[in-house]
Parts: sequence; structure tokens; C-alpha cells
Amino acid sequence: MAHHSGTLKLGAFLSGHGSHNASWRLPEVDEDASRSFAPYARVAQKLEEGLFDAIFLNDSVAVPELDPKSLARSAQGMRWDPLTLLPALAVVTRRIGLISTANTTYNEPYTLARRLASLDHLSEGRAGWNLVTSLGGGENFNRDDHLLHAKRYERAEEFFDVITGLWDSWEDDAFVQDKANGIWSNPDKMHLLNHKGAHFSVQGPLNSARPVQGYPVIAQAGSSNDGRELAARTAELIFTAAQTIEEAEAFDADVTARLARYGRKRADVRILPGVSVYVGDSAPDARARYEALQDLLDPISTLKGISHFVNIGIDLWTLDLDEPIVLPSVIPVTNTHKSRQQLVIDLIRREQPTVRQLLRKMVAGGHRILFGSAQDIADDFEHWFRAGAADGFNIMFPDLHGSVDRFVEQVIPELQRRGLFRTDYEGPTLRDNLGLARPRNRFSAARIDHSPAIRR
Amino acid sequence: MAHHSGTLKLGAFLSGHGSHNASWRLPEVDEDASRSFAPYARVAQKLEEGLFDAIFLNDSVAVPELDPKSLARSAQGMRWDPLTLLPALAVVTRRIGLISTANTTYNEPYTLARRLASLDHLSEGRAGWNLVTSLGGGENFNRDDHLLHAKRYERAEEFFDVITGLWDSWEDDAFVQDKANGIWSNPDKMHLLNHKGAHFSVQGPLNSARPVQGYPVIAQAGSSNDGRELAARTAELIFTAAQTIEEAEAFDADVTARLARYGRKRADVRILPGVSVYVGDSAPDARARYEALQDLLDPISTLKGISHFVNIGIDLWTLDLDEPIVLPSVIPVTNTHKSRQQLVIDLIRREQPTVRQLLRKMVAGGHRILFGSAQDIADDFEHWFRAGAADGFNIMFPDLHGSVDRFVEQVIPELQRRGLFRTDYEGPTLRDNLGLARPRNRFSAARIDHSPAIRR
Repeated sequence: MAHHSGTLKLGAFLSGHGSHNASWRLPEVDEDASRSFAPYARVAQKLEEGLFDAIFLNDSVAVPELDPKSLARSAQGMRWDPLTLLPALAVVTRRIGLISTANTTYNEPYTLARRLASLDHLSEGRAGWNLVTSLGGGENFNRDDHLLHAKRYERAEEFFDVITGLWDSWEDDAFVQDKANGIWSNPDKMHLLNHKGAHFSVQGPLNSARPVQGYPVIAQAGSSNDGRELAARTAELIFTAAQTIEEAEAFDADVTARLARYGRKRADVRILPGVSVYVGDSAPDARARYEALQDLLDPISTLKGISHFVNIGIDLWTLDLDEPIVLPSVIPVTNTHKSRQQLVIDLIRREQPTVRQLLRKMVAGGHRILFGSAQDIADDFEHWFRAGAADGFNIMFPDLHGSVDRFVEQVIPELQRRGLFRTDYEGPTLRDNLGLARPRNRFSAARIDHSPAIRR
Repeated sequence: MAHHSGTLKLGAFLSGHGSHNASWRLPEVDEDASRSFAPYARVAQKLEEGLFDAIFLNDSVAVPELDPKSLARSAQGMRWDPLTLLPALAVVTRRIGLISTANTTYNEPYTLARRLASLDHLSEGRAGWNLVTSLGGGENFNRDDHLLHAKRYERAEEFFDVITGLWDSWEDDAFVQDKANGIWSNPDKMHLLNHKGAHFSVQGPLNSARPVQGYPVIAQAGSSNDGRELAARTAELIFTAAQTIEEAEAFDADVTARLARYGRKRADVRILPGVSVYVGDSAPDARARYEALQDLLDPISTLKGISHFVNIGIDLWTLDLDEPIVLPSVIPVTNTHKSRQQLVIDLIRREQPTVRQLLRKMVAGGHRILFGSAQDIADDFEHWFRAGAADGFNIMFPDLHGSVDRFVEQVIPELQRRGLFRTDYEGPTLRDNLGLARPRNRFSAARIDHSPAIRR
């Protein structure tokens, strides 16, 4: 892609007490963040003060690790339903985007279409949907075996067609709402979907007006071949786990090539690598904050969590922490998190870490970890951004308190000083701020859409 | 039941622009109430000012009437997802209960358990669930034919067992959250559900702490035999459509008898008949408000809506408005709204209305319609309440604006003056205000629960 001269986009990845597994143990962090609204309201407002494009909530439909040691030591079993938390956050914020993860494997498109449309109306155009196929959890949804990877993607493709078709049920000007004459709607602007496919039969129409943004912004993080293909067809915001500029550039080139197959351009997509950021008053201060969190980590339950998340055929928690990791000759084929498995294998081959070193690398879910002063962070971001390796970043905050405050108070002003980041929101909707076009309604595509949200 | 000497409970049934089909045409009513948050926020705060026990949102998973005349004239096609609107309302209120309708036919128990648990945590114990089996909409959920009535109830029974079992996944004190020692939870207090039934296989545990209230308050409105039986086993709040004190007493006696089969007492349940209320400065003023709304009604689309809702084998909209209604010798068997069909048949037999008279009776979904001054309304409520025919009322506000204001400003003070209504909320949770016990966790039932919410 062309080297960037504009400004970068920033997402805030939020989960539990923070992206670091031990963050709940920090004195300043509210241990009830997954059942008490106040900590999330505070963080959302702080991120909006920092002009972040969006809050991005991840999700899961199961408690991942059930052995007693993990239950005792790892902060799990308590999680917000993201599409319940985000409507509440919409009320205490005005401009920041609200992106929810939701899976296509255990949901029904009609139900999810309603939830996301209502969130987009409630927030006046700030909703986003992170489409995932796999979150585990089949055991909670009448399935002994998790749907096969390929089948999940097939279902996801069809789910996307149905949900966007439902959002197009009503044209933008279908609701006449003429009180004097009692005319509520123009029936010619209502369109039945009448979808009949392998996975879904959905007649429509949706019982909701079209979302403010046409569709909520579509995000995705799948990096497998199927995942990239789905992203190329449907995603507008792509989260990656690129560790190096070279990896990021290769990913970018690959996605750009795939986009063309669907008549889309690179400019229709924003690519945001995830990065876990530790900001300190100086580089040593940042490192000390990072080390302090690492020291709070329980190795056994964390290693079990990693092994659950990415199966590389080794029971990591049975090894000595200072033992080097030797990959088995045959690595098991995985049905979940395919691309994340590859990332870990690559990392082990490249860096030959001990168990302890891998553990520390993996606390941000395998994302890049960055620590330093605000200048150091801004240098890194500027380097990636100017090189064209990223349109911005999805920041994985280690904790939900101080790490957010330090980023907003120290890194954001430094990015603004360099002209790398906005000094005010561009507009009221998430699409406005990301510079993404408002999608046409498929049923009125022949007409010219004069919607003010369209930029290109 | 014993005659009442306490105070009555009040629910506020909210839907669209109000329960009257023409309410959107009133000048003061915001025509965007189903996609703009402000009108609902305003009404919720007004109802809390009036110390209402709860807001109660209904739901539907389809646009009910698709013929062009109905689409053009009847305010449909736009509806909040109630479990998206209620989290937002939780933020702008402090004490009022938040009850959402959600169906057991097209939802998965794990998903709904999460949504309701998150709402209960978010609102600090104010969530309620109105369990319904039937809202139509099979055509949007891979089903050409709506599930048979009996099958729906069978699924609902199992759904209830699963969802409450999931809410019991974690005992109330399972989360130790000891930061210093890194102990997150006591694994002995996590319980797998391992449910395998005809409709659901769900392992658990839920990825949420137990709701603040143990379970959200369970509400139901089914009045058929199956509906009453399910309510007797599971409901804590029962909405009825009783038209007369005699009907209400018969319903009460029937439910009381059924409760005994499940080891429950009448005091475990609150029965609230629905009533549509028009408050005026005087009786003629109230009647004038009622007539003004009736005059805004479009007869054809409203009659189609009624026929869709309750099929009595007559195409009402083809008849002259002043023609008396003659029931056919054979009335079709219905698969939805069985009890509502019977209510209409009874009404026609009792009152022998013209089409126009039935139309006017049915604008509140067949509920009792009451108009008068604040004194008149309070007289009626007092009469029913003292007679033991109701524990309170579910008020169907004709519109979402003036009718709420007049009730809160005029009727509530009159009820308080008579000692019939609270002058402050009894406690922070919906259970506290309804005087309902906090349910025990089935897995820790052997231990004594000292929860402060328990009253009896």
C-alpha cells in the first residue's frame, strides 16, 4: 500500500480486567469489573477523552478452562455479555465507536441483526460488529463437537448475507411518519429477503429501521486462509496479530490481492495490528510496570490457558519454566484458532524460547508487546504507520485502569503533536471517524444515495 | 385469596409509541420512539419518579402484518430490541425494575442466561424476564411452520430448567477475589449443569457470576391451560387480561390451586391484571382524550392486526363498521394466543358488539380500558385491590408521553394519599420492591442462605 500521510486510527481492545491475565490483582483495578458497570463507564469516558475511534469488546460463550487449578487462579467465570454492556456505555459516551464481538456459529441472524441495529440506533451510528466463527462453547449449544472449521466459515458467509439483507429490509426513507394523514410507511420501500440457503431460511423483513450507518461497521480478525477470504469479502476493519513490519506488509499485500476479487479496494478497509502497550515515565519505568504484572502471573493456570487456546501438542504446564520448548515432530491439526497456532509455532521456531519466555510473550494473546515512554511508543507507531504497515492500532490495554490513563494522558498528546492523530472527532458516526463509506441498500442501489456519511 | 391490606404493585407496559395503535399520531408523541433513545429515557425517569415497580417491554420477532395497507397505516416495522434498550435505561434510572420479554422458542438458554445475568449485574438487581413461548416469527428462524402449541410449552419448561441451572453455575460466594494471594475463585463452588434433554444439551458453567437477585424476576402472561401450568411452576409475576373482578378471582383461585402442586404458595406470586388507563382532569376530559385517540385510528389496518392476532374465523375488515358481529358456527383452532382468542369470543358473546365497538375494545390488546379522573382511577384500583382481585396492575399506557405524565402526577399521589401505594422504594432490587424472596442456589440449597434480600 501507499505510505501513509494521514492520521492513524485507534481501537481499544477491552476484556475482563485488562488483556493481561494477572491485571485483576493490581491494587487500582476493580476486581468486579466484569459485573460492575462503574469501571467500564470510567474507562469508556477516558478513551473518548483520548478520541479513540472505538471500544472493541471480545467475547466467549464458555468458561474456557475448567480444571480446578485454573478456576482457582485465573480470572474467569465472570464476563459481560458485550451487547448488554455496550448499550449502557452508549449512554455515558457521545462519539466513541462501540464494537461487539458476536459469533455466527451459535447465533441466529435475525436476532443478531436486531441487537446490532438497536445498538446503532441507540448510539446514533456508533455500532460495529466483530464477526467471529469460533469461540468454543459447542458444549453449551447442543453440540458435542464443535463445527468443523470449513463448515463454520460456510455458515459465516451465509450469515453475513442474511444479516446485511435484513438490515436492508427497509430503505432509508421508507418511514414517512406523516401524523396528519396517518401515513406511517411507504410499503414499496419494504423488501422481503426470502432467503433460503444451506444454513438459514429467513423471510424478513427485520422489525427495525435500517441502521443509522446502513450497516454497523464490520470487523474481523480471522487470519487463516478462510478467515482472510471472508475478511476480503466483508470486513471493513481488520484486526491482526502481526509481530513485525514485514509480517504486516505481507498480510496487507495478501488482503489487498484478495479484495480485488470482490470488487473492493484497499481504501475500503482499515487494518489495525493489535499491540499490548505499557507506558511509563521512562523506558525503565515502563519495563518495571511490565515486570511487576508478569510477577503476579500464576504460571500453571496461564500455561493451561495458552495450551487450551493454541494446541501445539505439548502440555506446557508440565515442563520446567526454564526448559527450552521443543516442538513435537507431529503438531496436531486444530479446529479452532488455526492462525494463532501458526503464530505460536513461528514464534517458537524463530526465538526458541524457554517455557517462561513463551508464557510472557503470550500474555497478550500472542500480540506484539511494546513498552517505553510516550515518545518510544509514538516512535514505534510512527515507524509502522509511515512504512504503510498499519492504518492504526488496536491497543490491548494490560489493565483497565492506569494503563488506559497513561496512554490517553501521555501517548495521545505526543501522537497529536506529531500530526499522527486527530484533535477532534471527524463526525458523529463510527464510519465518519474511520472514513468508511455508508453501504448502499441493495434494494435501492439503482438510485443515487445522497447520504451525508458518504465520503468517497 | 385474603383481602389486601398492604400496598399495590404497579408495572408499566411499554411498547412502540404506546399501547394504542394510533398513539404515534399524537402531536406530543415522538414518532421516532422506536429508534431514538430520548423518549424512552424520559418516560423511564418519569415512571421512576412515580415509584413504579418496573418497566415491562414486550417483544416480537417479526413484522406482524405485511399487506401494503397495514404497512402504510399501522406503526410497525420499527421496534427496539428490548434487551438492548433496557441496559441503556438502567443507566438513566436507579431503582425501577427492568423486565424484558424474551421467547423460549427461537432463543438458546445459554445466550439468554448471559444477557439477563448481565442486565441484572448492570442494574444492580433490577432485571426481570417475561417468559413467552410464542411471538410468531418462525419464518425468520428456519421454520416454515410455527412450533405446535404443546411442543412450545414442552420446550419452554426445559428452557426454564436450563436457564435457572445456568444461573446457579456459581454459588454466591464462589468468587474469592483475593488479590494478595492470587486466588480468584473457589472451584468447589462452581457447578456444571450437564443437562441433556429433548430440546437442549448444555454443559455449563455460565460465564457470569450468579445474578444479583439469584434469578431475575420471572414474569409470565400465558393464560391457556399450558400457560397457567407453566406460570404456576415458574412465574413470580403474572400478567393477566382479566376484564372483571369475577374473572380475576376465578383466575386467582385457579392459579392458587395449581401453585400447590409445585410446593408454592400464593404469597410467592404477584398477579397484575393489565389495564389501559386514560386520566383526565375530569371524567368527561378523560373520555375526550380516549375518543380523540380512537378517532385517529385507521379501521382497516387495525382490524387486520386484530384478526392476525386473534383468528376468530371472520375477516373483520371486510365488514361494515356498524354491522353486529356474528360468530361463525365453527371457530378455527389457533396455534397462537389461544387464551386471547377465547377472551374475544367471550367478549362478543357477552356484549354483542358492532365491528366498530369491538375495534375500540381491542386497541389495548383486549385488556380492560379505564377512563376517568385520578379519583375515578384510584376508586377502581382500590375496589379491585381491596376485593383481593389483584396484587396491583400492569398499566398499558395509551401513549408514551402525556398519559404517563398524567398518571404519575395525578393518580400516584391519590393512591399514596389513600395508603394504597409506596412513598419510597422498599429496596434497591426489583425483588425487594415486589416483596419476592431471592431464590436459593440449587447446588447450595443444603446450606442456610443469609442473603439480606430474603424476607419470608
